[in-house]
Amino acid sequence: METAWDHRYAQRTQRMTSSAIRELLKLTENPEVISFGGGLPAPDVFPIEEFTAACETVLKQWGAEALQYGSTEGYRPLREMIARHTSRYGISVSADNILITSGSQQALDLIGKVFINPGDRILVEEPTYLGALQAWNAYGAEYVTVPMDENGMVTDALEGALRSGVKFIYVLPNFQNPTGVTLSMNRRKQLIEIADRYGVPVIEDDPYGQLRYEGEHLASIVTLDNEFRQNGSSEYIGNVIYLSTFSKTLAPGLRLAWVIAPAQVIRKLVQAKQGADLHTATFNQIVAYEVGRGGFLDRHIWLIRRVYGERRNIMLDAMEELFPPGVEWTKPKGGLFLWVMLPKGMDTTEMFKVAVKRNVAYVPGTSFYALGGGENTMRLNFSYCNPEKIQMGIERLGKVLKETIISGK
Amino acid sequence: METAWDHRYAQRTQRMTSSAIRELLKLTENPEVISFGGGLPAPDVFPIEEFTAACETVLKQWGAEALQYGSTEGYRPLREMIARHTSRYGISVSADNILITSGSQQALDLIGKVFINPGDRILVEEPTYLGALQAWNAYGAEYVTVPMDENGMVTDALEGALRSGVKFIYVLPNFQNPTGVTLSMNRRKQLIEIADRYGVPVIEDDPYGQLRYEGEHLASIVTLDNEFRQNGSSEYIGNVIYLSTFSKTLAPGLRLAWVIAPAQVIRKLVQAKQGADLHTATFNQIVAYEVGRGGFLDRHIWLIRRVYGERRNIMLDAMEELFPPGVEWTKPKGGLFLWVMLPKGMDTTEMFKVAVKRNVAYVPGTSFYALGGGENTMRLNFSYCNPEKIQMGIERLGKVLKETIISGK
Repeated sequence: METAWDHRYAQRTQRMTSSAIRELLKLTENPEVISFGGGLPAPDVFPIEEFTAACETVLKQWGAEALQYGSTEGYRPLREMIARHTSRYGISVSADNILITSGSQQALDLIGKVFINPGDRILVEEPTYLGALQAWNAYGAEYVTVPMDENGMVTDALEGALRSGVKFIYVLPNFQNPTGVTLSMNRRKQLIEIADRYGVPVIEDDPYGQLRYEGEHLASIVTLDNEFRQNGSSEYIGNVIYLSTFSKTLAPGLRLAWVIAPAQVIRKLVQAKQGADLHTATFNQIVAYEVGRGGFLDRHIWLIRRVYGERRNIMLDAMEELFPPGVEWTKPKGGLFLWVMLPKGMDTTEMFKVAVKRNVAYVPGTSFYALGGGENTMRLNFSYCNPEKIQMGIERLGKVLKETIISGK
Repeated sequence: METAWDHRYAQRTQRMTSSAIRELLKLTENPEVISFGGGLPAPDVFPIEEFTAACETVLKQWGAEALQYGSTEGYRPLREMIARHTSRYGISVSADNILITSGSQQALDLIGKVFINPGDRILVEEPTYLGALQAWNAYGAEYVTVPMDENGMVTDALEGALRSGVKFIYVLPNFQNPTGVTLSMNRRKQLIEIADRYGVPVIEDDPYGQLRYEGEHLASIVTLDNEFRQNGSSEYIGNVIYLSTFSKTLAPGLRLAWVIAPAQVIRKLVQAKQGADLHTATFNQIVAYEVGRGGFLDRHIWLIRRVYGERRNIMLDAMEELFPPGVEWTKPKGGLFLWVMLPKGMDTTEMFKVAVKRNVAYVPGTSFYALGGGENTMRLNFSYCNPEKIQMGIERLGKVLKETIISGK
């Protein structure tokens, strides 16, 4: 029935759409469906015992503080813990450079609110993280894209894209969502050098950096930028805003992430966050601090790496065996996702309906393209399903792929 | 030091300012200061035992769900519990009419995002809740104000204000923040009738409705609107969006609140929330459900009413005894705040510096005026300090008031 609200939506509301993934995944709620669609961590690795102990300790010792309003910046001991942790990677930040957010999605939203005027162009990878597009569409962002290959964003294409004038560059350097690809060291340096030359700042979104299953850790862009700028001093003055999260290492259900940025940028983000939700849940922050402070997180990340690394191997082996010729995919060294490319002309959104009937699901790749395209691609998650389900799901998907390729649709 | 971010702020960022309250309250961090400034619940009434038990139960029985990503709408059993609770007040809503938000501040932000175009006029009470102005300033809102008296918004002034064209009306009918005043039943009906005639929808913000210490509960505007529209049927089709929260009845540190709205409005708010923070912390929602589901909340609210009612009485008695002639104040029947009016020409922002030196704090009233004014007013909170501190703080404030009035500043 009509109400007085119905004709009063703001213009920006027309640019807000429910995530295509979200709508598709509703089709997969049937427990028979093996879903490689979501980006969910495995519940098997949630540290439930440690959480239980931490909740008890926090409520007993700091209950009045944990249940009360807190500061917009976030719980200071947690910010200091993150600052110490960050310093291990060679960049010296203090709690004043850190804002706790309600998940990284909120960090993307606050960045949009503080920086994006309607019509501003944001440079993103093609494909890129869908959640960033959703957050920034609401602020009227336009997009410029740079293609990806097996070494990440093709930085040789960067200058051409920057000439059109962009507000900032958005990059996911490690095990990118959706492709699983990692930006090479040479390209990281090239990105910083070009961004500096054009005076364009960078947002580095790094939810998965610690989840590496092979090879060596590559220095983050924020660290390299600082070195580039300072010849070895470690004080933080960067042109890079760095985002990370506890969602993949501790638990997403807490909604805890953080932004690292110059102190003056943090102050603006704090003003935006005050209006957006006052502060992130105090209780969750103190519990995360209690769980993390004794070094537990480092040990726990070893467990996650072992479990997810095994699942990635099982998925890659099964794909090698069961996927038909003509289908290609990435071989990520970490993270939660890999990326599948079907022969040109195939349509993974069409194929999705067939796949769901066969009780297997994925995300059609086109959702991740800011300017359209990618109809022949899909994203697979390998962290959530256990090894048996991964094997069974890839068998099912292999059959769907074979039939689709034979039928030529 | 300058970075590439510094000249890249969006236009709207210039309208974001850190809350004046927030800046002032930093001056009151000295533990010697008795602060009536914040809007904090008393930690004495936090149900810490019940929380501890609920955390343990939730992690043991539903740990994998509680720590995982959840739906943007919110945890369904919690939404159903809120729907049942709402039905007791004569308005029949389902879970589809309810969105869980990260505090009511997020509800205000999402409403701004979904409805406010730059330059849209919002009708607010004078004075009104500062957090709403902060949320909506970021979307370019302009304001039209209607004065308040001891019966709330002066609805006789409403038509004149509506003629200028407004997007929606924002009202806090129960124990308003900042004045503590309650909108009378006649005016509630008049508000609905006029809003309907002009086709303008209403936002009813009701964080304190259950915290009544004397007199009878008045039907909420959303309920009256529904009756007005339907001649007795209870299906929800309202022109009113209703906001409430667990912050004042359970604990603010959880950041849990809810919106009640027509299902089509909820769907738009859900899209906005997806981009803003994906969803509210699953763990907190399930714990709140576990704490609330056995009827504990009703019993707990009795305790809160007793404690806060006593504190209100102590503050009012002390003011009666200790405040000088010429100073007037409201006598709220519930909530957390009362409002003090000094003689015209006095300036409570100036006086604040003197008060803090005497170790007592309040919020100067001018922050709550959308269009300026209220220099001679202040807001006092009576929920946070214990009775001894209330007595001592009012003594100090009484002295400051006497001196200020004598000196004529």
